[in-house]
Amino acid sequence: MTPADVLPFARAGQPQQRGQAADARYPGGTGIVMMNLGGPATLDEVEPFLLRLFADREIIQLPFQSMLGKFIATRRAPKVKKLYDAIGGGSPILGWTEAQGRAMCERLDALSPESAPHRFYVSFRYTTPFADDAVQAMHADGVTRAIAFTQYPQWSCSTTGSSLNDLWRALARTGLEDAFTWSIIDRWGEHEGFVSSMARAIEDGLQQYAPSERDDVLVMFSAHSLPLSVIDRGDSYPAEIAASVSRVVQSLQVSNPHMLAFQSSVGPVKWLGPSTETMIRQLAARGQKNVLVVPIAFTSDHIETLSEIDIEYAELAHSLGMHGFRRSPSLNARPEFLDALADIVATHLAAAKPYSPQYRQNCPGCTNAACRGVPSRMAVHAEAHPMESAARG
Amino acid sequence: MTPADVLPFARAGQPQQRGQAADARYPGGTGIVMMNLGGPATLDEVEPFLLRLFADREIIQLPFQSMLGKFIATRRAPKVKKLYDAIGGGSPILGWTEAQGRAMCERLDALSPESAPHRFYVSFRYTTPFADDAVQAMHADGVTRAIAFTQYPQWSCSTTGSSLNDLWRALARTGLEDAFTWSIIDRWGEHEGFVSSMARAIEDGLQQYAPSERDDVLVMFSAHSLPLSVIDRGDSYPAEIAASVSRVVQSLQVSNPHMLAFQSSVGPVKWLGPSTETMIRQLAARGQKNVLVVPIAFTSDHIETLSEIDIEYAELAHSLGMHGFRRSPSLNARPEFLDALADIVATHLAAAKPYSPQYRQNCPGCTNAACRGVPSRMAVHAEAHPMESAARG
Repeated sequence: MTPADVLPFARAGQPQQRGQAADARYPGGTGIVMMNLGGPATLDEVEPFLLRLFADREIIQLPFQSMLGKFIATRRAPKVKKLYDAIGGGSPILGWTEAQGRAMCERLDALSPESAPHRFYVSFRYTTPFADDAVQAMHADGVTRAIAFTQYPQWSCSTTGSSLNDLWRALARTGLEDAFTWSIIDRWGEHEGFVSSMARAIEDGLQQYAPSERDDVLVMFSAHSLPLSVIDRGDSYPAEIAASVSRVVQSLQVSNPHMLAFQSSVGPVKWLGPSTETMIRQLAARGQKNVLVVPIAFTSDHIETLSEIDIEYAELAHSLGMHGFRRSPSLNARPEFLDALADIVATHLAAAKPYSPQYRQNCPGCTNAACRGVPSRMAVHAEAHPMESAARG
Repeated sequence: MTPADVLPFARAGQPQQRGQAADARYPGGTGIVMMNLGGPATLDEVEPFLLRLFADREIIQLPFQSMLGKFIATRRAPKVKKLYDAIGGGSPILGWTEAQGRAMCERLDALSPESAPHRFYVSFRYTTPFADDAVQAMHADGVTRAIAFTQYPQWSCSTTGSSLNDLWRALARTGLEDAFTWSIIDRWGEHEGFVSSMARAIEDGLQQYAPSERDDVLVMFSAHSLPLSVIDRGDSYPAEIAASVSRVVQSLQVSNPHMLAFQSSVGPVKWLGPSTETMIRQLAARGQKNVLVVPIAFTSDHIETLSEIDIEYAELAHSLGMHGFRRSPSLNARPEFLDALADIVATHLAAAKPYSPQYRQNCPGCTNAACRGVPSRMAVHAEAHPMESAARG
């Protein structure tokens, strides 16, 4: 074991000297790339957003992708535009991410002065700012130590995996392969601060009910679903969602019953159930009046909370007589969540691990050679990649 | 709130008097019904066991069940007999359950003298001793306070649900509906003692590897799968399995990567994946040599550990060059697990709750009106049943 292995992110091959100023490890401070799907900020951006999404073969595989993807995106655009129009004309995700980033960096400058100044860079998948924008801005700011910080608490190859693959490609596209020393925060669905922020948000959600009804409220966790083909490959997403749910339930001050369902499935293939929409119908049929939906896989408001849950599912529930259908507030700029974001980064820096023990383990049925890669410069020693060792062996 | 609500299992309507001898609540001590699937103890019992299993419409729905079930059971019997022959001529599950019961009751007599003496009664689903045997023996012993204690850590309607439905039917069959005052331990997959027993068993399993290989071992949790139709109804089993896995991983002293897979699917319908067998094939193909399988949903050795994992999957793994394929030991009579069993019961008695907050919530897609019922006499006030309130409302 070398000092580069044990010291907090001394660069590999550049062991830190004792007595040296702490900021030698962080000559330009620390850049934190906040990765998320993103959403169209204006109605005009809806169609380009959908075109990029349906062109991405890492997420959606279509026959004659370039034609069929364009066809589907163009056809869906007017409907999706209406949905964004109904929630204020665009996705609030960039605003929330920037507010979170600012607060996180302020807190980090106090928590971890040795790695200051901390700067955040938003990296979305299908709308600006793209990964290319993030790494170019980071380079322009003179940052050399970078953290890829997923904003999805639980891992899925479709979300965090796709964002990381794109981030590494962005380095190549911009010629910045050697500009940064990286580490990766690839999942944090059981982080104590995240868990307790969620639990407090649920307790706030329960305050929407009259005290006499509160014990009767069924807490329905809802996460974005995935096609079963992704689950069968070994994507750890459903297990990580369930782990978050378990932690949050244990952190609750109340003992309401809970359920877990999956929303937003589309298209003809079979997705992971039970379905949120079907569950609402079934619960309504048996007379359940009070259901509090908890979006467990997203931290900020976006189309699936503001439109799908708050409008589509709420209308369905009310039409079926489920008059106590409500949603717990998203974490957005909840102060304890801002504390959690800063703590996740500070803990990551202190742990001096390049990524979680799970990151380098491709799904057993992985079909994408790009997955679980690392850039050329990692802050601490990166372990051999199982698919590389298979190629060698 | 009445004393019957807050005192440990004072019978509803019979508030305990202060100063009264503690055992007035437990005039005949406490009977603990240990419910499990069971397995044929001898080769001659294999066919009757399969006949009962395939006749159970709560678990398996077949067209022309009485004929087709008999046909399938009779046809499978010779093959299944061979499997039991290879593991010593029968299932060891009764022996393990009795050893666990004895040790649990000894510990409980010391931990909770007010509810002593504690006696255990084994209740299997498709082989002796049946639920009828358990309740009749308990009645003969003069027990009146009874706990239905599932031996499946995580809930599924196919396992614990089925055993409870059968236990309540056994009360009717034997005319003992009013003989006992009941409470229910319906799940305990996140109990600290269970979790740490599992973690210690995994660490023991890792000792089977040379120190140089140990860090390379992939820990593969494997649980019995379920048909997707059961998952889609809202059975909480996959989420509870994942919650156990998350707790166990957090309790481990090592940071090996882990995965979760599901084994033992049969027949033409689609089951929950990823499949343990497929995962072994995929990991072998990418050169993974060391895999430690951890049975997370069973506590004692039985056909799925001793035959399916230790023989069938091990032979497959070795044939594919995966030479470090091993299994972590089952909990069986591991002392810390015996402590855990006693603690689960003692904690249940002290909490004075009739069942978990989850028990009375039928799956949203429930198709069995018998599910989540309670017997007529409960030790503490039982909440209204959602399906009963729908019937009323």
